[in-house]
Parts: sequence; C-alpha cells; structure tokens
Amino acid sequence: MANKRPRITTDTETRATAEHAFDLRLWLRMLACTNLIESHVRVRLRTEFDITLPRFDLMSQLERSPKGLQMGELSKRMMVTGGNVTGITDQLAAEGLVVREDCPKDRRSYIVKLTPEGSRSFRKMALAHEKWILDLFGAMDETHRDQIYELLGLLKSSASRAAGISGA
Amino acid sequence: MANKRPRITTDTETRATAEHAFDLRLWLRMLACTNLIESHVRVRLRTEFDITLPRFDLMSQLERSPKGLQMGELSKRMMVTGGNVTGITDQLAAEGLVVREDCPKDRRSYIVKLTPEGSRSFRKMALAHEKWILDLFGAMDETHRDQIYELLGLLKSSASRAAGISGA
Repeated sequence: MANKRPRITTDTETRATAEHAFDLRLWLRMLACTNLIESHVRVRLRTEFDITLPRFDLMSQLERSPKGLQMGELSKRMMVTGGNVTGITDQLAAEGLVVREDCPKDRRSYIVKLTPEGSRSFRKMALAHEKWILDLFGAMDETHRDQIYELLGLLKSSASRAAGISGA
Repeated sequence: MANKRPRITTDTETRATAEHAFDLRLWLRMLACTNLIESHVRVRLRTEFDITLPRFDLMSQLERSPKGLQMGELSKRMMVTGGNVTGITDQLAAEGLVVREDCPKDRRSYIVKLTPEGSRSFRKMALAHEKWILDLFGAMDETHRDQIYELLGLLKSSASRAAGISGA
C-alpha cells in the first residue's frame, strides 16, 4: 500500500485526463496553481498569526479603504473568499481591530474601518504575506514571470468579455 | 454618486497598488483570473443545474474513482473547495446519485461511489462545464493558451518546490 498514498489534495490538475479538451486541462492547471499557493498562504497565516484567510482578506479590504466600507459593500467584496462577514467583523471589533460607525448617508447601515491597532496588525501580516508570495513565485525565473503576468492580463480581459463582464 | 459604483467584486487585482512588489501583483492577477472563471462556473451550475460548486466537485471526484472513495479520502480531496462533505454525501444519497458501501479494508469506514444515475447526471453537467470553459478560454488566441499552459506548468513545479511539496 505504501505506493498508493493519496496525491496532494490541492492538485486539481490530476483530475484532467487525456480525453479532456485542452482548455479544460489549462483551467485545471490554473486552478491547481492557485490552490497550491492559496493553501500555502492559508497554512502560514494560521501557524504564524493564528488567523484565517477570510479574516486576513477582510482586513485587507479595509486597509485599502481608509474611510471604511459599508457592511453591504464589504460583503460584496468578500463574496469570493466566503466566510461570515458579520461574524468576522464582530470578532475583530471585540479585539479592538475594527470599529463600526454610523453611516452618514444611510441611517440603516454602518461603516466598518480598521482601528490604528488593526492597521498595525494588518501591516505586519501583509509584510509576511508578501514575503511568502515572493518565495513561491521567486522560484520561477524573471522572464517567465513577466510573460505569465502579460498572458494572465490577456486572459483576464478575454475571459471577462466572454463571461459578459465589462472592464478587465 | 453614479461614477462611484463598486467594482467587480471578484477582482482581487484591484487590491494591488504600485507600491506592491511585482510578484504580489502577479499573484493577485492570477487570483483575479481564477475567481472570475470560478464565479462564472458557480453561477452557471446554479442557474442551469441548480447545483453548488462543492457538490459538482464532489461528484467529479467520484467520477474519477469508479471503485469509489473512502469518506476520509474524499474529504481530503475536497479540502480546497470546502463544503460539508458528509452533508453533501447525505443529500446525494437521498437523491439516489451516490451510494455508500462498507469498506472491505476498514470496518469503521465506508466507501462512497456514484450510482449509474449519478454518473449520467454528472456527465451531462461535465459536458456543459467543459463548454463554459472552452467559451472563456477560447476568447484567447491559441498560441497564448499554449504559452500560458507551459508557464503554469513551470510555476506549479517551482512553487511546489518552494512550498516544500514534493512532486509537481
């Protein structure tokens, strides 16, 4: 049985077989790369900062919006990562990392923003996060990284058009 | 306010600013592409087949393993997509799309496999899924698709090495 160990679980590409169309293999390879890197980030956030990826992502959204974000907008931006936005916000507020303020434009809503402590805490994690990404991508030579960056730009605009999403 | 509409929520790349290192921008662009395509697939699975992505992924894992999978192995393979494996399996079993059988090698465990009906149902969705992927990637010219496929292969092996994961 020793040679029958399960493969790396993040490897969606092992799903692709010869009978699949090339584009499907391309997509599964892309998904495998993304999952590989995202899993690595997820594990390191957990072990080094005891934080989940959705929580890190939520703080990163707030860091980009120094005036804060309405809950509805924050939820929309977090849709992909998932996670319970209200629950995460409650936790972060209890720890003094975010504050909720009344929304001047909409009395039924409120605005969430990072506290100075939340911002400090996020920046420390963001630096580490950037280093992990450099370590993972840095193993690939620079010319190839430039090429993949350009090609992903082309893919993003052509797939956006095909998906009927304006802008790229 | 009309010009202040929120951007496409799946676009993680909007998080990248000039001050970020190139590799981080590369990663966020890759994540934006993956999220764009995954969201599109998620919406179409929902609207055309009334099925969630984790459920589709679980069936696709079983389709690849005609002899079935032990629950533990299935959970491992589903780790990335998340979703409650036991809950999904219960639903699919109630609908006659999967069956559970005793595991000959481990009396405490059992094996899940697609029923013939589950397999038929999955193949129908898989054909549609393949078509959506062809539509999204097909908007990019063939040479670029070949290049990105090769480059993602390089990224996958170098990032795996850097992440300390054997194999590529």
